[in-house]
Amino acid sequence: MALIVQKYGGTSVGSPERIKNVAQRVAKFKMLGHQVVVVVSAMSGETNRLVALAKEVQPNPDLREMDVLLSTGEQVTIALLSMALMELGLKARSYTGAQVKIVTDSAFSKARILDIEEQNMRADLDAGHVVVVAGFQGVDEKGNITTLGRGGSDTTGVALAAALKADECQIYTDVDGVYTTDPRVVSEARRLKTVTFEEMLEMASLGSKVLQIRSVEFAGKYKVKLRVLSSFDDEGEGTLITFEEEDKMEQAIISGIAFNRDEAKITVLGVPDRPGIAYQILGPVGDANIDVDMIIQNVGADGTTDFTFTVHRNEYKKALEVLKGVQAHIGAREITGDDRIAKVSVVGVGMRSHAGIASTMFRTLAEEGINIQMISTSEIKISVVIDEKYLELAVRVLHKAFALDQEA
Amino acid sequence: MALIVQKYGGTSVGSPERIKNVAQRVAKFKMLGHQVVVVVSAMSGETNRLVALAKEVQPNPDLREMDVLLSTGEQVTIALLSMALMELGLKARSYTGAQVKIVTDSAFSKARILDIEEQNMRADLDAGHVVVVAGFQGVDEKGNITTLGRGGSDTTGVALAAALKADECQIYTDVDGVYTTDPRVVSEARRLKTVTFEEMLEMASLGSKVLQIRSVEFAGKYKVKLRVLSSFDDEGEGTLITFEEEDKMEQAIISGIAFNRDEAKITVLGVPDRPGIAYQILGPVGDANIDVDMIIQNVGADGTTDFTFTVHRNEYKKALEVLKGVQAHIGAREITGDDRIAKVSVVGVGMRSHAGIASTMFRTLAEEGINIQMISTSEIKISVVIDEKYLELAVRVLHKAFALDQEA
Repeated sequence: MALIVQKYGGTSVGSPERIKNVAQRVAKFKMLGHQVVVVVSAMSGETNRLVALAKEVQPNPDLREMDVLLSTGEQVTIALLSMALMELGLKARSYTGAQVKIVTDSAFSKARILDIEEQNMRADLDAGHVVVVAGFQGVDEKGNITTLGRGGSDTTGVALAAALKADECQIYTDVDGVYTTDPRVVSEARRLKTVTFEEMLEMASLGSKVLQIRSVEFAGKYKVKLRVLSSFDDEGEGTLITFEEEDKMEQAIISGIAFNRDEAKITVLGVPDRPGIAYQILGPVGDANIDVDMIIQNVGADGTTDFTFTVHRNEYKKALEVLKGVQAHIGAREITGDDRIAKVSVVGVGMRSHAGIASTMFRTLAEEGINIQMISTSEIKISVVIDEKYLELAVRVLHKAFALDQEA
Repeated sequence: MALIVQKYGGTSVGSPERIKNVAQRVAKFKMLGHQVVVVVSAMSGETNRLVALAKEVQPNPDLREMDVLLSTGEQVTIALLSMALMELGLKARSYTGAQVKIVTDSAFSKARILDIEEQNMRADLDAGHVVVVAGFQGVDEKGNITTLGRGGSDTTGVALAAALKADECQIYTDVDGVYTTDPRVVSEARRLKTVTFEEMLEMASLGSKVLQIRSVEFAGKYKVKLRVLSSFDDEGEGTLITFEEEDKMEQAIISGIAFNRDEAKITVLGVPDRPGIAYQILGPVGDANIDVDMIIQNVGADGTTDFTFTVHRNEYKKALEVLKGVQAHIGAREITGDDRIAKVSVVGVGMRSHAGIASTMFRTLAEEGINIQMISTSEIKISVVIDEKYLELAVRVLHKAFALDQEA
């Protein structure tokens, strides 16, 4: 008998029919003798519906009340799923975040979990109940309802698995695992049986979004065995996320090719090369709540330097405006930009112990005539910025160059 | 400065626009220097939507989970109304039933309020907040979400007014008060400035449904000053429900004419006139969960008796079937019925000290050729059952006979 935490997203519980399907799947695990805790999101569309209602009343909605409003979405789902489980003859009991209770800080709309009381859930599990918990939500120490922010249901699943010392946390999504790259771009893309925690982090933050980053971090911190599976496929074993490199002795050097089309770059030309210049440029950008991704600074000749960084494409115009506003102050000659770029990355813990990954990457791109505009590296990934129009080509040739189409 | 509890039903908060209107009204009271607690129902249509979802998943939904589900309806409204109040520049804070906390017993779907913690609300009021509370819901001692049953938001309003010792509990509905009878039937119907608690109870249970009976009982028990007002009319003063007859020295003898079209009658003919026969007839009816209203038994001649009672028209056929099933057992000669009947009642505390009300009523009906099929009386009302087709005529002539069209 194992204790399994399963998390189902909004699409998986998007209709009464789908909720019944989830109940069938849960029942299968229960029949095998396992204890099951199910974490669910709001039915797909529901959160958007509630946000629209709020904005009609208060264009810039109060965060505390927004959390009161949005938390109803998951509360509807836990009740419906519990009913569906009972209809199959199982014992089931729903819990809101406050009922569990999942104690968070008071940062409405982006609260962090501080503590989980597991006694009541444990008693219900021991009494043979399926425990159905509302994802995404908690309660602060004063009893205010909080939410963990969008996608926070993954984090709830992992946090419950950690608190209950579950044998496995299964995240059901609309994809059946983590792939070497996006199968829509490279038809030979393969599902990875395992991927390390760190690779997963890089893959997620680079656009291969399967899991919320915070939930993966959380799983790493508490050593939760995390598996990504499809809720629409009964057979697949998904992808297991591992936290010990030793688990992966057969590890390929490179696990996958991640990419991101939503980037734009901004270059500040001819700024005086003096201490504090990076802060003078990026300070106003940060003050405008614009997240910066890659940053590159080249030392120039005549005492000036060129400074380039990337932002989300949606914030490109805003970032340009901010910088034009401070151009005179920082003494820049010119500010230019390009929002038709893309970022492509090779990711793999194997590169730590293997030389030549970068040169293989750069040679492969050069052979196709793809110019590299920016380069950024970490211990387990190499990212390049290229012209957006070469994105698919770059991903395909890199996938082949690192033999990702072949089983390791 | 007064402390006022206001309750708004589902129609009054049925859209973002209407929620903004409620906020405007609340703001008016706040500007006058009053402290305001607002109790709201789910937006109209929402409860039905949730019930339909539940029934798709579990045709006979689990009551605990149903309460988890339905309580989201009011939770959405408290968040939206709090946002609307803030948008007007007021301080506001929402409370679910569990957050207040409104402690109930564990009778899911029809819980009764046991206790209300008022410290937090009091602190918020003193700090200048409008307190916005979800009606209809509470929490049992184990932390389970409960609901008070449909219409329970009125009860929440009155219970909060009692707990906070509010100066007045205002129930906003789509009518602007309690009338001498239904204005759609008698155009001369007048709004009553005051009505006693007992009259209100009789008027409500007899079909002039403005308030939930339980909330009126609750108000009587805790001597809460209760006022019914229209949420669509800014001027009216509504109807005040009083609990002391001395408040009403100028009281008219009769306050109103109530009526009910939803009745059906069943007669069991020729049953042996022996002890226990009423139980033998009504026991099976009660076992089938059919509520019985009026009951009449006439002693007959030859050791048999005729027994007549009324039920809700929707349950007429079921009740007939039940009785046919036990006809042989109880030894009845025949079972007949009629679902084309109506009940008309004159109501007024004044009749306690005035003779002749019954004879005026019966004479008035006789003059119009309306046959009386059943009669039932209490201290402050006289009800008759008549052929449905005479209902409007009966109400009109009685309204005139008791001079209800003239100010007292």
